[in-house]
Amino acid sequence: FLPSQLSLLYKWLNSFPFLFLSGAGYHSESKAKEYKHVCKRACQRAVDRLKAGAFAVEAVAAALVELEDSPFTNAGMGSNLNLSGEIECDASIMDGKSLHYGAVGAISGIKNPVLVANRLLNEAQKGKLSAGRIPPCFLVGQGAHDWAVTHGIPPCPSEKMATKFSLSAYKRNKRKMELAEKMDTGHNQTKKRRQSSENENGSGCLDTVGAIVVDQEGNVAAAVSSGGLAMKHPGRVGQAAHYGCGCWAENACNMNPYSTAVSTSGCGEHLIRTMLARECSAAMQSEDAHQALLEAMQHKFISSPFLASEDRVLGGVIVLRCCRCVEAQPSQDIQGALVEFLWSHTTESMCVGYMSAQDSKAKTHISRLPPGAVPGQSLAIEGGVCRLMSIVE
Amino acid sequence: FLPSQLSLLYKWLNSFPFLFLSGAGYHSESKAKEYKHVCKRACQRAVDRLKAGAFAVEAVAAALVELEDSPFTNAGMGSNLNLSGEIECDASIMDGKSLHYGAVGAISGIKNPVLVANRLLNEAQKGKLSAGRIPPCFLVGQGAHDWAVTHGIPPCPSEKMATKFSLSAYKRNKRKMELAEKMDTGHNQTKKRRQSSENENGSGCLDTVGAIVVDQEGNVAAAVSSGGLAMKHPGRVGQAAHYGCGCWAENACNMNPYSTAVSTSGCGEHLIRTMLARECSAAMQSEDAHQALLEAMQHKFISSPFLASEDRVLGGVIVLRCCRCVEAQPSQDIQGALVEFLWSHTTESMCVGYMSAQDSKAKTHISRLPPGAVPGQSLAIEGGVCRLMSIVE
Repeated sequence: FLPSQLSLLYKWLNSFPFLFLSGAGYHSESKAKEYKHVCKRACQRAVDRLKAGAFAVEAVAAALVELEDSPFTNAGMGSNLNLSGEIECDASIMDGKSLHYGAVGAISGIKNPVLVANRLLNEAQKGKLSAGRIPPCFLVGQGAHDWAVTHGIPPCPSEKMATKFSLSAYKRNKRKMELAEKMDTGHNQTKKRRQSSENENGSGCLDTVGAIVVDQEGNVAAAVSSGGLAMKHPGRVGQAAHYGCGCWAENACNMNPYSTAVSTSGCGEHLIRTMLARECSAAMQSEDAHQALLEAMQHKFISSPFLASEDRVLGGVIVLRCCRCVEAQPSQDIQGALVEFLWSHTTESMCVGYMSAQDSKAKTHISRLPPGAVPGQSLAIEGGVCRLMSIVE
Repeated sequence: FLPSQLSLLYKWLNSFPFLFLSGAGYHSESKAKEYKHVCKRACQRAVDRLKAGAFAVEAVAAALVELEDSPFTNAGMGSNLNLSGEIECDASIMDGKSLHYGAVGAISGIKNPVLVANRLLNEAQKGKLSAGRIPPCFLVGQGAHDWAVTHGIPPCPSEKMATKFSLSAYKRNKRKMELAEKMDTGHNQTKKRRQSSENENGSGCLDTVGAIVVDQEGNVAAAVSSGGLAMKHPGRVGQAAHYGCGCWAENACNMNPYSTAVSTSGCGEHLIRTMLARECSAAMQSEDAHQALLEAMQHKFISSPFLASEDRVLGGVIVLRCCRCVEAQPSQDIQGALVEFLWSHTTESMCVGYMSAQDSKAKTHISRLPPGAVPGQSLAIEGGVCRLMSIVE
């Protein structure tokens, strides 16, 4: 069962499972509807690219562009505003085939940060620059913006990226902050800081977007994009630009029987310090995917020693793994690929969409914590299996 | 053998092994002498702090300040200039006790970037900001600079951070680059890029500095600071600001018998994509430290699947691990701590210094690849053991 046969098999089946998430956070009913719409469009965009013969990494970038362009997600257009009222975005992408990676952090004035990350990945694959210089895989701030523009990615005036919603959220948050700081004055600052309300991060500010894809050759890819936490300090970089934290993709190899792709969403600092994307990818190499993800979310995230001082650990992941499989039957052998996709989150809800090239449209789902469960301390986990089979003569 | 007893034991012995490196790269004889001097001063600075009762994380920051202040290292003062002739620094620090982490990337106009990273770590340990906002662990660019200044770290005019040496290296590199690009014109660009000289990165541009420390309570800490590759693109962030890549420190816990601290130096993109600091730390949990580091450097770095397309993989690590140990003797039990420190590099040379609080001065050493070995394909590995023993009545 050689890779080339597998590739043919995939082509024959014309099936490319694909899924994506639009942010762990809190989704009201009205918001949920919009999220589902943009999820569907993003799935469709990626599947269209896959049908046209694109690799996983190109399809995942196409899905992200759709997600970034939606004013309802906290990525690209409509991103959260920072403390200075500006938009600074993080994004990264990883190709499971080449294991190359590109990322941008705190980039302003670019409509689709994921396209800059993708371009960095592509440029790095071309090898060294003039005079033996090693091409960058991670650029931040003004330098990232300038690199993007000189590489043909058009700038976008920042004011065009803010929406009515993000501007009014900024004003609301600013008032809230000023009020909280006024109340702190005269008290023990340190004590106050620890006691300050824990419930302020709920309103749409964790809605990072991400996607994971497997293509017709069985290559996996993952990407993530985020406007970051509302009222973050200028220059703050979250998990979406952090290697191993925001996304991960690794094709199967001698060491690993499964190809895996992971994308994360939630509180950047929690996802960075637990390196959640890479941890989940590594966990996926054990036999029972559901059990492995459950344990990873419990031991490597909620009760991670790296977050011992945090009382609520907020995040979500989407995970995809696939492997070749053979089933011996009396008259013939059945060969194929088994694709498992799972999602899990400790946030109140998470919006997920998925689609294969056989589907006429994407399925979407708002996953919610069970009633009574405490966000940041409990988790929800769900998933599906997709078996792509072929009879071998 | 409780932690409090261990602490007393350490105090009684008054011994704090400590070591540090000043950059994997190429060190001429004249440069080696300067490097050794600054190594000694940095060791002394950290030991002074430890003797005054400082924790590992404070001592490691003190060592880094000394290293950054030297005009001979590629960190802080005297850092490499980027493509625009500006200095942009990366630095990070990790505390093995709290597992907190702070980092700055592409920061300009600050003399000691490690102090900003350390301040971020300290502020994050204080808990949430007003209105429940999560404090940042990673800041970049102008935002990082502004945060530092508002937190009492004085700005330093960029022109004061450049040295005669860094300015003349910039001019030399710029001429070299222009020449290389002129020669490329009219040829197949992609092919040229791959073929361009591999030997351009040798002249002092990899000399990231780092340090690892164990304190009197047995806590470990690690830090790293770098001016980045010469002629890097503005906004480029290297391993020194990347979680898991530039430094790692983890106290022993239920899961891990050893406390480990690691700091890396070399080509940032190679160290990022292999997550070398964290990989080495994880490897150090197996019994034979020397063998574990050798295998990590061979399999997780030189022949890492993440760097399959690279013909030369350039980097170096310093590693420290310690554990409690008991030796049963006929008449009494001997208890204590075993501290192992190792270094390994694939670069032509690496400068290492180490000192315990019992020593009157630091030892320094320029480690070199064996004659005939090819940098980026071979490695050197050395180390020492320090046994701190006490007779238990």
